[in-house]
Amino acid sequence: MTSATAIEAGVQIREIGSFHAGGKIVTLKDQPRREVQVARNGPSRMVDLNGDYVTGQCYVQFVKQATPAFDAPVMFWHGGAMTGVTWESTPDGRPGWQNWFMQAGFDTYVCDAVERGRSGWSPYPEIFETAPIFRTQNEAWGLFRFGKAGTYGDRQAFDGLQFPADAMDRFGSQFVPRWTCHGPQTLAAYEAALERTGPVWLIAHSQGGNFAMEAAARWPQYFKGVVVIEPAAAPADTGAAHEVPHLFLWGDYLDASDTWMSYREKVDGHVETLRSRGGTADVMELPAIGIKGNSHVPMMDSNSDQVAQIVCDWIRRQNG
Amino acid sequence: MTSATAIEAGVQIREIGSFHAGGKIVTLKDQPRREVQVARNGPSRMVDLNGDYVTGQCYVQFVKQATPAFDAPVMFWHGGAMTGVTWESTPDGRPGWQNWFMQAGFDTYVCDAVERGRSGWSPYPEIFETAPIFRTQNEAWGLFRFGKAGTYGDRQAFDGLQFPADAMDRFGSQFVPRWTCHGPQTLAAYEAALERTGPVWLIAHSQGGNFAMEAAARWPQYFKGVVVIEPAAAPADTGAAHEVPHLFLWGDYLDASDTWMSYREKVDGHVETLRSRGGTADVMELPAIGIKGNSHVPMMDSNSDQVAQIVCDWIRRQNG
Repeated sequence: MTSATAIEAGVQIREIGSFHAGGKIVTLKDQPRREVQVARNGPSRMVDLNGDYVTGQCYVQFVKQATPAFDAPVMFWHGGAMTGVTWESTPDGRPGWQNWFMQAGFDTYVCDAVERGRSGWSPYPEIFETAPIFRTQNEAWGLFRFGKAGTYGDRQAFDGLQFPADAMDRFGSQFVPRWTCHGPQTLAAYEAALERTGPVWLIAHSQGGNFAMEAAARWPQYFKGVVVIEPAAAPADTGAAHEVPHLFLWGDYLDASDTWMSYREKVDGHVETLRSRGGTADVMELPAIGIKGNSHVPMMDSNSDQVAQIVCDWIRRQNG
Repeated sequence: MTSATAIEAGVQIREIGSFHAGGKIVTLKDQPRREVQVARNGPSRMVDLNGDYVTGQCYVQFVKQATPAFDAPVMFWHGGAMTGVTWESTPDGRPGWQNWFMQAGFDTYVCDAVERGRSGWSPYPEIFETAPIFRTQNEAWGLFRFGKAGTYGDRQAFDGLQFPADAMDRFGSQFVPRWTCHGPQTLAAYEAALERTGPVWLIAHSQGGNFAMEAAARWPQYFKGVVVIEPAAAPADTGAAHEVPHLFLWGDYLDASDTWMSYREKVDGHVETLRSRGGTADVMELPAIGIKGNSHVPMMDSNSDQVAQIVCDWIRRQNG
């Protein structure tokens, strides 16, 4: 297999690094001071909430090859309650999509959305207006379609599930809290990141897929193409997105979840609009091409390399 | 210069990936349910705080070379209010220490401490017992010794400061909230990471330096050597740490900060104990060897490559 061979050989990397994009300075005033022991066995210190903070930035980690094989990098946007870790090693320890696309010859940019992972988050309610929400293992089990909602307790997985259910706890280690009202900040920070990178092949998952569709509608100039993996709903308007080729990719067991059937319906409407405006909007249902058992996170499923290859083949077809 | 040449040539990378280590499952019960709009334009959903969470894990990102030049990898632990981003590109966009040590031939492991960055964090007060604290730009300016405490307002930097003060806002983009009472959880998660990697050359910064000294005291078998950059205080006991060679590295302007003079005094006591027990405990004050102007974050200062070379030379000396 292509990826396995490449992994043995390795790729020539010029630089690994990161940057934060977007965000702004906000200043807090008139907050009470507190005395806190900040270092083990160190002196205690007065902690003062008053002052300047950077808020609303996103984190972007890049891997640049000595001689990339493609004319544009792949950028990755994760889904809700997740971070860029989505694209790294799978919960059961196999190489992930970041590594796969790197081995395939792409420069890669992995993003953490605003307020998640290495993007950092701000005091609430002083700067962020609301409290965050949290994802339980129980909710994830049904929502990520490892089994029917409510079957987490005894880990009743769907027949033929490709997700490594034994690694459920390591999957749960990846979850982060999230705020539900930061769409505008997230899009603004992603735009700042794209301004810096120039055009990319975007691969986006779930909530990130929704951001991807919205970004393509607003800023088609930043995208060679957009691959949307299991998008959670769709934006109200397609804007100029028909100028950008889209691939929509779905896993298995959609009909076992009302939430996903509802998201799928919205996305299908988006696809129709893109097509009616002359755009390329390819829809790939993995079960329909004989690939069964994929969950909401095909980049972590046991056949993750196979699905990566499908995405890569689609990218090559757009290019050539 | 070594690093610049290496960067142009690139290095052969076999795999980039990550894992979470440590942590445990906790279960919340009897919490109220809430209705929340979780996806833009998607249906609203009942959010249920009750259920299982993974808590207390740390995130570890690795870069493995096709043929590493050293017998053990470098592992990086960041300081308070920071994440593994500390070791990536500098705030003004130059390659950072992760890249430098990778180019020098090491496999690298960059960690995010428990509850920071990609490690995720847990609901409080339901799982974490207390609220987090936040770092302002104002506090950082003095504490990181860019200028005297209180001079952030007009950015009055120390004479000859090597930190790129113009990039102060991009530096502040790296800050994350932190809890002040999770030392035991952090050490437990780091131990789980070390159990997985085997012996490392540890490079630790500030609060991470304190964790490094404690870890070397408890688990000397995991360390080829420990490099402590500007440690924030020292643990109460050196334990078996004298079995592990230590390098303590300090920047400039220490005497402008009572906090740092106090930390330094505690660390000097630790050094004396290590030496009295037959250990190697080298102390390097950069100004004393003619390298002036370094702040609390020499890995981000304009001479970051020079300081990395000093650390690498020390590692080579321990090895040979």
